[in-house]
Amino acid sequence: MIHISNEDIDNFHHVYRINLINSCSGYKSANLLGTKSVDGIENVAVFSSVTHIGSNPPMLGFFLRPTTVMRNTYENLKSTGFYTINHIHKSILEEAHHTSAKYDSEISEFDKTTLNSEYKKSFQAPFVKDTPLQLAMEYVEEYNIKANNTILVVGKIVEIHVNEELLEDDGFINLSKADVATINGLDAYAIPKQNKRFGYQRPK
Amino acid sequence: MIHISNEDIDNFHHVYRINLINSCSGYKSANLLGTKSVDGIENVAVFSSVTHIGSNPPMLGFFLRPTTVMRNTYENLKSTGFYTINHIHKSILEEAHHTSAKYDSEISEFDKTTLNSEYKKSFQAPFVKDTPLQLAMEYVEEYNIKANNTILVVGKIVEIHVNEELLEDDGFINLSKADVATINGLDAYAIPKQNKRFGYQRPK
Repeated sequence: MIHISNEDIDNFHHVYRINLINSCSGYKSANLLGTKSVDGIENVAVFSSVTHIGSNPPMLGFFLRPTTVMRNTYENLKSTGFYTINHIHKSILEEAHHTSAKYDSEISEFDKTTLNSEYKKSFQAPFVKDTPLQLAMEYVEEYNIKANNTILVVGKIVEIHVNEELLEDDGFINLSKADVATINGLDAYAIPKQNKRFGYQRPK
Repeated sequence: MIHISNEDIDNFHHVYRINLINSCSGYKSANLLGTKSVDGIENVAVFSSVTHIGSNPPMLGFFLRPTTVMRNTYENLKSTGFYTINHIHKSILEEAHHTSAKYDSEISEFDKTTLNSEYKKSFQAPFVKDTPLQLAMEYVEEYNIKANNTILVVGKIVEIHVNEELLEDDGFINLSKADVATINGLDAYAIPKQNKRFGYQRPK
């Protein structure tokens, strides 16, 4: 085993450090967040920090820094109150990852990639068309993480759109059936297969 | 596509709802958190919510409810200030998942599974022996998520222990080389392979 100390981490070149620290939490979710500005400009951006917070009420969170490429997403969801979470799957990996490029707010990533927007009923934020699992989200609250000035955004799931074949009898959504991606670090994507379920555990 | 409304979610049987909502955020990290109580009782528990918060300083977060099985982990890390994050890999899936069973605080999951604890230098929290990536963590702060009374625990990485073959030249830790697991929903585990890196993106 290689031992990396706190001092080593502090002294690494910043590119080495962001690769290292971003890959050491484990596999991450691979999502495209869709928003629309009050001026009607659509935005779509890749996020790997969407995390389950609770199922009743159904809540998810994600982390962002106020001064990065994710800023358009944040400004749009704050001003409109709504956003979408769309799962990245095998056939759109490269286009999805490209949304991490720092485009100005007047440019839509839908115009710079082959990704297409899609609207459902009266929900105002754009979904990403042809993704196997799409969530309509409503902004609930946010927390400023003092330790590094990151923001945790908490949202409520107001609608789920899921490919019929993924949804199993007990409510489990089998992501592997849709070739949904997972992210390792900043830029590595994999398509997990052959998941194995172990069920609810009781003490022996 | 199946459309599931907010009302549908509210009206589902609670088991169906927790399966559905827990599997709709995407793939999750698969970690064992190791702690030791002030009375010297070791605890190890599976978590799927460890998430990257920032790389400088190196910070990770995870979510927990104060009244579930995770309580021992929380009480121990609050009273001692330290915990470990250990990656679940292919050969310990079933044992790792069993730590989700609700054991009393005086019982160590290390005694109820084949998992073994391991200590390094002066760090007081137990690591899980033979895991390919182990993080020594220091408690920093916590946030009470008002929306559902969940707690976000924020910790700093103070040491990284990683199998040499996983660490690539640019700092990237290649989890697939160690058969590290990812979690879908509450109880499905997969071992991602063949990740593909896309690099840093600039506007076209």
